[in-house]
Amino acid sequence: MSEPNVLQPVAPWPASDLPGHRLHFDESQPLLLDSGEKLAPFTLAYQTYGALNGDKSNAIVVCHALTGDQFAAEDHPITGKPGWWSSMIGPGKPIDTDRYFVICINVIGGCIGSTGPREIDPRTGKPYGMKFPVITIPDMVRAQMRVVDHYGIDQIFCAIGGSMGGMQVLEMATRYSERVFAAAPIATAAYHTAQNIAFHEVGRQAVMADPDWCGGDYALYGKTPRRGLAVARMAAHITYLSEAALHRKFGRSLQDRKNITYGFEADFQVESYLRHQGSTFVKRFDANSYLYITRAMDYFDLAAEHGGVLARAFEGVKTRFCLVSFTSDWLFPTSESRALVHAANAAATPVSFVEIESDKGHDAFLLDEPEFHRIISGFLDGAAVYRGLRRR
Amino acid sequence: MSEPNVLQPVAPWPASDLPGHRLHFDESQPLLLDSGEKLAPFTLAYQTYGALNGDKSNAIVVCHALTGDQFAAEDHPITGKPGWWSSMIGPGKPIDTDRYFVICINVIGGCIGSTGPREIDPRTGKPYGMKFPVITIPDMVRAQMRVVDHYGIDQIFCAIGGSMGGMQVLEMATRYSERVFAAAPIATAAYHTAQNIAFHEVGRQAVMADPDWCGGDYALYGKTPRRGLAVARMAAHITYLSEAALHRKFGRSLQDRKNITYGFEADFQVESYLRHQGSTFVKRFDANSYLYITRAMDYFDLAAEHGGVLARAFEGVKTRFCLVSFTSDWLFPTSESRALVHAANAAATPVSFVEIESDKGHDAFLLDEPEFHRIISGFLDGAAVYRGLRRR
Repeated sequence: MSEPNVLQPVAPWPASDLPGHRLHFDESQPLLLDSGEKLAPFTLAYQTYGALNGDKSNAIVVCHALTGDQFAAEDHPITGKPGWWSSMIGPGKPIDTDRYFVICINVIGGCIGSTGPREIDPRTGKPYGMKFPVITIPDMVRAQMRVVDHYGIDQIFCAIGGSMGGMQVLEMATRYSERVFAAAPIATAAYHTAQNIAFHEVGRQAVMADPDWCGGDYALYGKTPRRGLAVARMAAHITYLSEAALHRKFGRSLQDRKNITYGFEADFQVESYLRHQGSTFVKRFDANSYLYITRAMDYFDLAAEHGGVLARAFEGVKTRFCLVSFTSDWLFPTSESRALVHAANAAATPVSFVEIESDKGHDAFLLDEPEFHRIISGFLDGAAVYRGLRRR
Repeated sequence: MSEPNVLQPVAPWPASDLPGHRLHFDESQPLLLDSGEKLAPFTLAYQTYGALNGDKSNAIVVCHALTGDQFAAEDHPITGKPGWWSSMIGPGKPIDTDRYFVICINVIGGCIGSTGPREIDPRTGKPYGMKFPVITIPDMVRAQMRVVDHYGIDQIFCAIGGSMGGMQVLEMATRYSERVFAAAPIATAAYHTAQNIAFHEVGRQAVMADPDWCGGDYALYGKTPRRGLAVARMAAHITYLSEAALHRKFGRSLQDRKNITYGFEADFQVESYLRHQGSTFVKRFDANSYLYITRAMDYFDLAAEHGGVLARAFEGVKTRFCLVSFTSDWLFPTSESRALVHAANAAATPVSFVEIESDKGHDAFLLDEPEFHRIISGFLDGAAVYRGLRRR
């Protein structure tokens, strides 16, 4: 495809129109990436909730998952829906914003304000597209620490997040152990499994198979690989739910009809639901960001970062850990959390672990699961006592 | 898209060039479909192995799975690879062709010689495409019984098959109970679950999202929705394997490289393997057939065919059943086989059931699993004694 004469960088939502905080870093402050490349200039978009206390000891860094973003505890500016962790974060909630100062940062490589493939490459004046450098989970964390530094926070009280957010928490608490008092990696793992890489690869191939992807330069052509990205989301969405949850929610129920139609319309509710998940996702997420962030997850391997021995990642780490898994989560099964617990134990790192009975699959960490919320509440309360945080 | 001036029906392999048996039915012998439509004329392509005995009591009908075909026990004429059940069928093998007469029929709606969406619609002179009627598992079985009738076989000695093949076996043995002495539905279920429908829907959407699908009329335009079908196959293929099998086979091993490349090439072996699965599949399978056959599986619901009560499907059924499941099969888990066993028990239908320990996932039924083969051997030997078949 030849490049159009008139360049028309198009984005479904102008990042500059989105509300919230921005931190800009210029050419003199590049982000050093695991790949060896330097990213500069770059911007980090983030939200905060609550107030930082006098000795800056009450900061909680909330790390978002693959398709999450910084709007964790407020209505989303694009979709209008409640923040992805609004059940968890807020006044009187487990992450109590009357007590803690919450920071949630859009990951580098993302598409909701932080620099990623949809932003303009200053070297070319065009969106980066596939010329954006490949980023890793450690790169994401390195960027997040810039925001922490900006606030003059020596030690984060707690880093917390689920799924890819949990990977960031593991990375942050092991690499910057002195700076993370407590850590709660939820529904996560020390590495991405072959099955998980396989599902991501299917999603990426679906995006790249869409002719509207244009080799990643769709914005230049005023296009969006909607169909490919929707298929990727549909496949991924199945992995976020358990078979039991799908059975309970949909079973073989038909969608607005009494009988099957002997056709290819969405006869079954589960088909209609999945199609909806696909079509709404493309309105709020950038296809290239999806490629980059899934790749970062695939590359994550905490043991490999420490000579292939997971326990070494925890050597000398005094951060207090609380790990949580969910019984029906087949994307990040309990066995992966247990492996982390064993490694932390081997290094004498303080760790508690709870497997929560739930039939809601991986998505349980985003849902209003009372036992899960009680555990996070209790863990933060206990850590606050040790940290010497005053009760309000 | 406007229709091209010159019609060029294109198929990747001319069905008429494929070897093997054909049965043709003309306008006077239509196949009555569950949808209410009549299919005529139509052709059934099939293979046989071994010889039919004098009283026609030694016939085994082998039913193939979604992407299988009639070339069960010989090198495949398109791929050159061994037949999908060549470890099971042959002289001295569990389905012993020195003793039994094996018939394996390409399902109606298929693409390897039996009438399906890629064949010419006599009403228009063009390939059926999406004008092919939606077919069901009962329709497939109704067609297969035409071949059985053609041989003058009053009673099939045994119907056997895995996955969708098992669905056909269940349908055949419950609907034509008097005509099926023994039945072995393997790694299958009485209905397709919400999760399985969801995975199929992802595959269909991937095919339909490919612009080269052309609304199903790709053959008219000399195109093939290769990319969409490859993505569908990749997603499906993950479900055929267990997480343990993927871990053992690939883990996080890199493909022909020592380090990750910080890019989107197939760094991991599992990515390379999946891409290969996708690209080879499109050389031997028709995209529209994939839509139709997945739909048939989605629609299968043996209980619904019997007033919503599974046990009623087995009422009066004297066929001897042997069910087999595999521990790591998450597509058709053991619980689904157990439900069938309970239903058969409730109707006093003779049934034996074995769950085989295997970490190979759903695909185990296609692999050289010694315990599985011993069980099928034993079941057929026992049934042969009751049927009064002489040992050779």
